[in-house]
Parts: sequence; C-alpha cells; structure tokens
Amino acid sequence: MEQIRQYVDTNRQKFLDELFELLRIPSISARPGHNKDMIAAAEYIRGKLLEAGADKAEVMKTDGHDVIFAEKTVDKAAPTVLVYGHYDVQPVEPLDLWESPPFKPEVRDDKIYARGADDDKGQMFMHIKAFELMNRLGTLPCNVKFMIEGEEEIGSPSLKKFCASHKDLLKADVILISDTTMIAQDIPSITVGLRGLAYMEVEVTGPDRDLHSGLYGGAVMNPVNALAKMIASLTDTNNRITIPGFYDDVLEVSDEERNEMAKTPFDIEEWKEAIGIDREVGETGFSTTERTGIRPSLDVNGIWGGYTGEGAKTVLPAKACAKISMRLVPNQNSEKISELFARHIDSVVPEGVTVKVKSLHGGEGYISPINTIAYQAASKACEATFGKKPVPVRSGGSIPIVADFEEVLGIKSILLGFGLESDAIHSPNENYPLFNFYKGIETIPVFYKFFTEMSKG
Amino acid sequence: MEQIRQYVDTNRQKFLDELFELLRIPSISARPGHNKDMIAAAEYIRGKLLEAGADKAEVMKTDGHDVIFAEKTVDKAAPTVLVYGHYDVQPVEPLDLWESPPFKPEVRDDKIYARGADDDKGQMFMHIKAFELMNRLGTLPCNVKFMIEGEEEIGSPSLKKFCASHKDLLKADVILISDTTMIAQDIPSITVGLRGLAYMEVEVTGPDRDLHSGLYGGAVMNPVNALAKMIASLTDTNNRITIPGFYDDVLEVSDEERNEMAKTPFDIEEWKEAIGIDREVGETGFSTTERTGIRPSLDVNGIWGGYTGEGAKTVLPAKACAKISMRLVPNQNSEKISELFARHIDSVVPEGVTVKVKSLHGGEGYISPINTIAYQAASKACEATFGKKPVPVRSGGSIPIVADFEEVLGIKSILLGFGLESDAIHSPNENYPLFNFYKGIETIPVFYKFFTEMSKG
Repeated sequence: MEQIRQYVDTNRQKFLDELFELLRIPSISARPGHNKDMIAAAEYIRGKLLEAGADKAEVMKTDGHDVIFAEKTVDKAAPTVLVYGHYDVQPVEPLDLWESPPFKPEVRDDKIYARGADDDKGQMFMHIKAFELMNRLGTLPCNVKFMIEGEEEIGSPSLKKFCASHKDLLKADVILISDTTMIAQDIPSITVGLRGLAYMEVEVTGPDRDLHSGLYGGAVMNPVNALAKMIASLTDTNNRITIPGFYDDVLEVSDEERNEMAKTPFDIEEWKEAIGIDREVGETGFSTTERTGIRPSLDVNGIWGGYTGEGAKTVLPAKACAKISMRLVPNQNSEKISELFARHIDSVVPEGVTVKVKSLHGGEGYISPINTIAYQAASKACEATFGKKPVPVRSGGSIPIVADFEEVLGIKSILLGFGLESDAIHSPNENYPLFNFYKGIETIPVFYKFFTEMSKG
Repeated sequence: MEQIRQYVDTNRQKFLDELFELLRIPSISARPGHNKDMIAAAEYIRGKLLEAGADKAEVMKTDGHDVIFAEKTVDKAAPTVLVYGHYDVQPVEPLDLWESPPFKPEVRDDKIYARGADDDKGQMFMHIKAFELMNRLGTLPCNVKFMIEGEEEIGSPSLKKFCASHKDLLKADVILISDTTMIAQDIPSITVGLRGLAYMEVEVTGPDRDLHSGLYGGAVMNPVNALAKMIASLTDTNNRITIPGFYDDVLEVSDEERNEMAKTPFDIEEWKEAIGIDREVGETGFSTTERTGIRPSLDVNGIWGGYTGEGAKTVLPAKACAKISMRLVPNQNSEKISELFARHIDSVVPEGVTVKVKSLHGGEGYISPINTIAYQAASKACEATFGKKPVPVRSGGSIPIVADFEEVLGIKSILLGFGLESDAIHSPNENYPLFNFYKGIETIPVFYKFFTEMSKG
C-alpha cells in the first residue's frame, strides 16, 4: 500500500496533465462532425497503454467507432482481468450553462471540470495509470487486457458484434469496469444492479407546412397538441407506466430484499438539495432508491416543435418530435418493450396526424452476484484504501453492454465505480473530484492483488 | 376603369420593383436584432408616400416600433379614408424549408415569393400605389390618411396608446385595411368577422440542472412529461377546450345564421389538399368554416425542452417550455381568457415541478356589419373589377387592433383583403400572386369613388 501511495503522490501532476490532454479532445460519438476527434482520442489512448507497459495495443475497426484493444501477459497460469471503459462522451448542450468550456478542463475546488471528467474518460484513465503503476513497481500479479470503446454514449451499437468476432482475443476471468458511482467519498460502494434501456423517437406530422394558427386553428389537428396527448397517455396519476404489458416481466423484489436495501445509507434531504428539487416524485408505493434501483421508469429526454424563438409567432406547426426513453429492470427485454411502446403509441394517435416511431437504441439490465471472487476482491480492496467495507447498490443507470458481455463472452463484470452523483455526468459542468481520481488509481492495484490471490487460492 | 387599368399596366414593372425593395428589408418585429431594418422599412415607406402625393408623411415614435403617418387633404367637406397596414413581418424559421431566401424576393409561376409578400407589405403597398394612381390621374375623390405600423406581428402592443394620443390626427370616416384573404381569385370576399387572441407562454422547471435519466429517472418529476400532461388537460376528446369558464362568453350563432354561412362557397377537399392533410379535425358539431370562423380554438405554437440534437442523449431535462395561443370569438375577452388559462394551468401542475405562466399578448375579436356605406362601397368596387359580387366571410385570423380602433377612435374598419389562403403567410415560401397584387391596386380607387359618392349622397 505504501509503495502504491508513494507512486501516486509522485505522479499526481503527470497523471492529471495526461488526463487533461484526453479531456481536450471533443470525442462526442453522437455527432458525425466529431469523427476526427474520435480517432484522435483512440490514438491517444493506444499510445498511453503502450507507454504504461502493454505488450501490444491497437486501434481495431468495428462497424462504428474504433475499439482500442491492449494486453499484457505476465503468466499463463495467472487469471486475466479485462478492463472495459469508453472514450466517447455525451454532447455538451446547453453550452451556456457551463461555467468553463466543456473541452477546456480545469481544476476548481479540487474537482476536475470537463465533459468526460468522470464519464468515462476520468474513470477509464485511472485503469491505465494503475496499470502503469503496477508495471513500474513490478507488482502486476496477473494478465491484463483492455477494451476501450467509442460508442457507449450512443448505446454501444457495434460492440456486441465486435465481442462475438473476437471471443478468443477477449478471453478473461472477469471484466472490470469503472463507469458507475459510489454513495459518497466516505462510503465506497459496488454496483450490483443496472437498469436496461429502450430509447425511442416519436415524430408527429400534421399539415405539410407550418400554418397560420388563426386561419386554420380549430380545424386542423395540431401535431404538438397531439404529441402532448400521446405522452400524457404513457403514465398515470400514480406515476406508473400505462403501456399495456409494460410491467409483465418485471421481477418483483421480495420484502426481505427491500428491507435489506433500505439499510443502505441514503439521505433524501441531501439528495433533493443536490439537484435543487423540493419534492421527490415517482411510482406510488416505492422509495426513491427503489424507484431508481429496482423499478423501471419513463422519461421524455427531449421535445421540439413549432416556433421556439423570442416573442409570439402564431403558427400551427407541421411537425413535433420527442425523444422518449425507458429504463428497464432485469428480466425486461428492451426489444419487447420498444415494440410495446410503438404499439401503444399507434393505439393513441389522434385523428388527423401521422406518427413515426423509431427505436434509437436499447440494452438489457444486469444483476451482479455478490458471492463471486471478483466482488469479494473488490470489497477487500475498498476496505484497504477507504478503511471501510463497501456497500452493494443497485444503480438506475444503464451499461447495456454488461449484459451482452455475459451473453456473448460468458464473463461476469464487476462494477467498481468511483464517481459521485454530484459529478453532473451528461449535464453541464460535469466534474470529477481529484480525491476520487487518485483514490481509484490506488484501489485498482489492490483489487488485482486480492483477485489474483483468491483465484489461485 | 379604363384609365385605371392603363395606369396599372404601364407601371407593372415599377410597382413590382418598388415592392421588391421593401421586401428585401428583413423587418422582423419580434427580433430586437432587426431594429435597424425596422427603421429602414419605415423610412422607405415614408419616402414612397411622399412620392405618391401625400401632403406630408412622417415617421412617428411610439413606445415600440415607429408608425408612419401620412395624409392628403383634398376637400374638407369630403369624407376621409384612413388606410391601416403594417410593415413588420413574421420570423422566417425554419429557414431550410424556403425554396428561395425569404428576403430575396423573386417571381416564380406568376407569384411573388418573399416573407411579407402578402402579409402585409404586399397588401399594404397596393394602397400606396393606388393612392399614387389617383393622384397622378387627378381622380382622388376624398381625403386620405395612412397609418402604417411596425408591431402587428407581435400584437400591436403600442398602437392603442398611439391612437389614444392622436385622436384628432387620426379622425376619419372609415378605416380601410387589406390584411385578410379572399376565398379564391375568382371569388372576391370581404371579411366581416375576426377572432381575438390570447397568446401565453408556459415554463416548467424541475431539477436545477439536466440530470442523468438513468440515475434519477423514476424518482424526479420530468418537466417535459409534466408539460405534456398540462397541455393534454387543455382539450377533451371532442376537441373542446376544457379550461373552466372558457366558453362562458362565447356568443352562440343562430341556426339561421349558420345556414346562411354554409352557403359560402367552400371546397373541403381542395382545402385539405392545399395544406396536405387527409382529415379535418376540430370541435365536434361544427363545420370547418365554423371551427375557424365562429368558434374559439387552442394551439400549441411551439414547444421545447431537453436534448433535441441527433442521436440519443439520456437526459432528464431541467426545464420545458411551450407557447400556447387561443383564438377567441367576439364577446370573449382576451384578458379574462388569459387569466382563466393561467388559473387552469396552476390547478393541474404535477407535484415536483414549478410553473410560470406569462401572457405574451392578447387582442379582441371583431364583427363588421354589412349594412354600412363602407361595406356597400367595397362590394360595388369588387363587382366592378372582378365582375362578381363579393362574399362576406368570417376569418379565423386576428387583427386585434381593429377592435381597439372602434373602442379608441370610434371608427369602423372595412377589411378588404386580396390575399389567398395558399399564400403561406407566417410559413416558409410566403407568396402573393401578381394577379392579386395588381387587382388590388385596381380595386382600391373604385372603392374610394363609391365610398365618396355614397357618403355625400
């Protein structure tokens, strides 16, 4: 431990400078205009993996953005850890709410501010630096592979096929991922559940052009009014989702398990204050952690139509659109849910408009057992560096590829995240505390040590 | 008549060139960035009024954009016609749907294409050219005043006060306005009813920043979902407006009058085809012309919130907004309706969000009697130039200032419009047929002749 701390201390500024260089690359996977940046980010990471001590590191083609693969073999008898992470980031709008430009990283109040500071450049880079540390100190106890993708923020559309085509290359005993949060800086946690996702787009078309709302208003179905009715029909007054069949496959969690979950430290007042709301709202009969952890949800992620500029324009819009996504719990199937959604929308289309529903992406939920070597090793590692046993938590977020890893590669993942809920990922002013960044780099080598020992033993 | 036609024929190109010069000025009143263009348009019109033969023409200050006032006195004993029009235009978004740039006027298929080609630069300019014609031919039979404003497209917020401060200056026997449509090029019509308007903006605020929809979805009220519910609550399945008290002051039109209205030529198939819809939709129990003519309506004019770019961003938005306007019928009061709207919205705000409702503008409806000298003179003028008696129609549009003119100045207006419904006013590719432009210039002097004769006789 002492050796690890010393190496991190000595290299604090170097680690930060290198991360900053990566954060400066606007690798937004959702935007075709950023393809060059995607390539630059992948190349940068490949270089850093070689510098850190990989035997080989290459940028590999997929049907979409490239994957960086690297490996180092220490001992064929030792276990192999496959590190997964992603170098793409979310779009940055609304830009005017950022206090510093999203791709000009800076440290304020001991936090790194930049798009990707946490999700996932910051967390992924900890693994490269921990790998470097073990190589420099000569303490790397097992074989290591890296698979860093560039499409996580758009739902990893190419990675499942990539995995299927490279099963041998990706053989490993566990997949190690830091792309989740911990409860607080003094409460380490390991994510044992993730939600799935079905992300849809609905386009409503009325007249063939924007009309004058005076001359036509009252005689033509307005696409925005129609869209509002359709969205309103998706949930009821108990904030339950009303799509027929939606809850059919939801596994109800037993009272016993719910009681166990309720013991996880959670301060609702702090939680509300952190996001500026007065009142939590969700499905009747469930607590806030249950609503995000074990229950599905439905959110409009974006809506647009008609005149949105200053002042008053009296227009009856030709079109209205919404992006609507549903978070799913394990056992719900994203394709089935996408179909149920489309069928429900079709059944509530008002007269006089036409509607197109399209699935933008989907992925399955995941539950990670806690009786595995990987979980126990991660738990011990956190205990060693935080001085506290970590709490197992179910996260509301989705990393759909985790379910695919299990299905295609037959490998379980361990979700050892060092982010905080206050990191504002996907929002303006995304940040990542320096404490968490360095603590992650310290904890990872300890995980490798315990995981190797326990695998052998 | 022959003399008039000859003058118009000789000056066809000159009239068009002069109108084009005006159409090139992007005088969008809703956008503060166009203030210089507003001033340029006003100055251009002032110059044209002087050239046309006005005794004086000046640009007068208001609390907002300037008004151009001009007059010519022929004979103190003769009646006075006050021409009203406006030089401001609607915004032009969405720009990509214009086939030619909105402020680069051009003629295609015998139509003038440009923002303002019809509404109202094209129609207003006919009056200046008809005035020029009468001055050049020495046939101006009465006194004329012009009041051309720059805020019609934002609800004429300053004009009522301007009228109240200049009652003497604006004294007249009738107000002549061309800012409405006729049924078809071979069916002249005179607008005898206009709807009022109450234009509102609703802003819904949830968390203090955009949140990750996975980590928070299901536990935080989503402002877009909330806004959709509120909009959905404004109308029922019969497309009636459900705001309590909304219909209280609506004057029901007698069956006799409805039967009379039903005789107005109207081809529903042509109407639907012109705007590209399969099915007309509106309040149960009323025909299409009744829905826009004698019944109020409610339309979302614009909506926005969350992520509206390409691809999928999993965000739970901090805010959502909508512009919502209601067309009112005579006897409904726009202030009262705005209040009822705000009260209803307040009563349906879901838990967990806060809502601000603001009135952007309002104006009253208007009914113009057909037994007036002005109506009879306009009818005879149309008969002379179109060879057909015009049809009295109720329009769904609003020119709120018309009700104000009657209230403040005590003067009735005659709505002699030469636009067509296919002119796409307020839409991309606004246009105005050359036929209508020149026919208007021919018809106006005949109106002056009959109006003067009938007033004297």
